[in-house]
Amino acid sequence: MMNRLDSVSNEKIKTAVKIASSSKMRKETGLFFLEGLRLCRDSALTGTVIRYSFVTDKAYEKYRDDAGFIFSASRESYLISEAVADKLSLTQTSQGFFCLCEKSDAFTLSSVDAEGKYIALENIQDPANLGAICRTAEALGIRGAILYSCCDRFSPKSQRAAMGSLLRLPVIESENLCDDIEKLKNMGMKVYATSPDSTAKKITETPMKGGVICVIGNEGNGVSEEVFSLCEKITIPMQGNAESLNASMAAAITMWEMMR
Amino acid sequence: MMNRLDSVSNEKIKTAVKIASSSKMRKETGLFFLEGLRLCRDSALTGTVIRYSFVTDKAYEKYRDDAGFIFSASRESYLISEAVADKLSLTQTSQGFFCLCEKSDAFTLSSVDAEGKYIALENIQDPANLGAICRTAEALGIRGAILYSCCDRFSPKSQRAAMGSLLRLPVIESENLCDDIEKLKNMGMKVYATSPDSTAKKITETPMKGGVICVIGNEGNGVSEEVFSLCEKITIPMQGNAESLNASMAAAITMWEMMR
Repeated sequence: MMNRLDSVSNEKIKTAVKIASSSKMRKETGLFFLEGLRLCRDSALTGTVIRYSFVTDKAYEKYRDDAGFIFSASRESYLISEAVADKLSLTQTSQGFFCLCEKSDAFTLSSVDAEGKYIALENIQDPANLGAICRTAEALGIRGAILYSCCDRFSPKSQRAAMGSLLRLPVIESENLCDDIEKLKNMGMKVYATSPDSTAKKITETPMKGGVICVIGNEGNGVSEEVFSLCEKITIPMQGNAESLNASMAAAITMWEMMR
Repeated sequence: MMNRLDSVSNEKIKTAVKIASSSKMRKETGLFFLEGLRLCRDSALTGTVIRYSFVTDKAYEKYRDDAGFIFSASRESYLISEAVADKLSLTQTSQGFFCLCEKSDAFTLSSVDAEGKYIALENIQDPANLGAICRTAEALGIRGAILYSCCDRFSPKSQRAAMGSLLRLPVIESENLCDDIEKLKNMGMKVYATSPDSTAKKITETPMKGGVICVIGNEGNGVSEEVFSLCEKITIPMQGNAESLNASMAAAITMWEMMR
């Protein structure tokens, strides 16, 4: 069922704009905002519940199959004017595709495969980093991400940087990372925490067989002392200027070594 | 010698704004724009010629030692008002430090150490990627970067993403990457080009001893056919969704394997 929506002051559009910009609104409504053909299509492909989809007439003409597919997966579908798209868009070059989706529940710790490889992110604050790390995790075949005290994974910036990976990669939201690390260790898993400390165990000499979790810390401050105290500290040995390895690059190399 | 500059319509300020925003202006003047305490300090530390430095009164009060160091390394130094800083700043939270620096000459191919490890970037178009790759290259101890047909390494976005690495890492600007690859091969170096093609040689099985150059291609299209035809094609073996490895993450893993 396809409807038209041409007024920028329509309540649905106003709600979508608020959800796009506010983590609080996303929490209250249980909805999140996606923009772009690829992300909207990925949300349909992954079975994410699409409450509303909005597509401009121009985009509908140009990508009729994709638009039809997205509409068919949506509870309510709207063709919108360019003015409405301008109101919704967070990017400079809008493709004319927008969705409001229902947040899916995070996985619980009991879903963890004790023989699998996981990444744990502690206090990652840059949504672009969060998205990029999860994108790389999916690419490398990491089983899931445990997020603790990170920025909102449902923000448009996180979702865009993840290129759909955050819709597919199993995510566990930890309320207490220390408790969860203890539980994972009790399941027989090895838990490592990455550090720039060059005296820590070299990642190239760290056993990665079986169930392994690597913790990546905050962009500025790294992994917290409480978490370090529960984990074996590992490091990426470097020949150059160590200051220059950022969180997402360090995460990429760490995950690569886990899967190598 | 410290001067004051309080007018947003001052010619030096107008020039700085143009140089910050225009690659053409950077080419014409031979100057580039840096913003932020760290980048301005790095430019002084690396011996980059600072034609003009601009520091707000507030920043001067707060970071007197750093400001003094930057001023002492500058041809001309100016204390500026907040209004002038607002005019100059490209960021939302300006630190009040700005420089106009002279572009240093790129290195030539004859500077290449035939036993060293280098990265070649073909047609990287996102300044954030260019900066991040060079930052990681420096961190991992890569000897230098060969840039061909890339976005402007002197743009504020590239410089910011590089966190000073582009001021330190030796950069060679190639006019003809195919010709240069032939020359590097004649010097006895191995030249590999990365590809998502899973039938290519696995990077984990690729000899990395001695002089090696790895070519990373454009974000969307990868390495060009002409370059592939001159190189051995290598790939990062993946267990997950290959589509999800972006150029800078692929570059990080490639450089890590070169240096591992």
